Amino acid sequence: MSETTRLVEVRQRVLKHNDTVARALRARFRETGTYVVSLVSSPGSGKTAFLEDLLTRLRDRHRVAALVGDLATDNDARRLARSRVPVRQITTGTVCHLEAEMVASALEGWDLEGLDLLFIENVGNLVCPSTFDLGEDLRLVLFSVTEGEDKPLKYPTIFHTADVALITKTDLAEAVGFDAASAHRSIQSVRPGMEVFEVSAKTGAGMERWLDSLRSRLAASPSDRENYPASP
Amino acid sequence: MSETTRLVEVRQRVLKHNDTVARALRARFRETGTYVVSLVSSPGSGKTAFLEDLLTRLRDRHRVAALVGDLATDNDARRLARSRVPVRQITTGTVCHLEAEMVASALEGWDLEGLDLLFIENVGNLVCPSTFDLGEDLRLVLFSVTEGEDKPLKYPTIFHTADVALITKTDLAEAVGFDAASAHRSIQSVRPGMEVFEVSAKTGAGMERWLDSLRSRLAASPSDRENYPASP
Repeated sequence: MSETTRLVEVRQRVLKHNDTVARALRARFRETGTYVVSLVSSPGSGKTAFLEDLLTRLRDRHRVAALVGDLATDNDARRLARSRVPVRQITTGTVCHLEAEMVASALEGWDLEGLDLLFIENVGNLVCPSTFDLGEDLRLVLFSVTEGEDKPLKYPTIFHTADVALITKTDLAEAVGFDAASAHRSIQSVRPGMEVFEVSAKTGAGMERWLDSLRSRLAASPSDRENYPASP
Repeated sequence: MSETTRLVEVRQRVLKHNDTVARALRARFRETGTYVVSLVSSPGSGKTAFLEDLLTRLRDRHRVAALVGDLATDNDARRLARSRVPVRQITTGTVCHLEAEMVASALEGWDLEGLDLLFIENVGNLVCPSTFDLGEDLRLVLFSVTEGEDKPLKYPTIFHTADVALITKTDLAEAVGFDAASAHRSIQSVRPGMEVFEVSAKTGAGMERWLDSLRSRLAASPSDRENYPASP
């Protein structure tokens, strides 16, 4: 038990250090006018497919880029590269989440002033990423219709620490007998008032509605954006 | 960085302590002739549906029970209780995996000598559970056809530490365009020779083939089973 207490103490120091680095990152993003969106979800809930579609839709009107975290392989970075925006991979080894320092290192040498929007795809995990601030403006939690309507009840912390929920793979809703009302009830009981979007990266359903919301947030963000207007 | 080093050190002590408890558990299971199977997977890959079906198929010929780990809620335990075998919930709070000590506590007061088979469903997570021995005889890693064929490449450690892989939700294979050959290649490249079963708890496809394999393992296990024959 004393080992557990010690682990908790060390974890708290790690989190405190992470918060310091995240705060510096956030200040830097604000300065360069870069709006940062992170994505968390369990493995296989469709983060990469969603992000690939999103980057493709955004790239003509905004300067966008992405960082993608994985334990091993650069499969996701290679998939995202098909959207023809700058992408960098963060390989975490055995670490089950991204930390602010990993983001800071991955950004070395990047001209953030040239970026309107940066997406950070976290490692697929519904637990560990929740307590690590990455300096983002907006955190999205994704879960797919194939995962079960009670996911928010079973992983409440990740929903508490996210800003927006996205229900993905809605094209499979009928095949899996997805109960949308029950899923929405689960989300609202964990996080009352949470904004929820239903999307399918495969068919494109719901993507424009979500994009409108993202653009409104972008326009309302306090970043010093007038100096860095969106590309034509 | 020194915080990280300290975290690694404390984690190693926690793992060492876990190994000690797991060793004692394993000795106890052997003594009582209880064959123990643990299940790991990402959230939503169908562990509970698979286990509910499995328990129902086993209960007439074997004395079976289950422990189920979750961060919050006893939804899974209630689902498993429909199979009418003894089920206990382990609620981990914010901990992303089960530890041997949690299993030991959950078993307090249970008559293991009355059990042929004990299933332990881990928290939905493809990273954290991999390094925690629970004293099990067999570890199953599940991943569903909706999660992407490259899951084993992206989460190699969990495949390294598991004994058998189960591809679940095969009833959805066509709807998601699942490439079985590619999934099998991914598994074999991470863990050459790994035994793989394709199952659907919904249609029952593949369940009997997997069950035959489980029964062979059970028969071949070194547990002192002759004293505790399977119920008629």
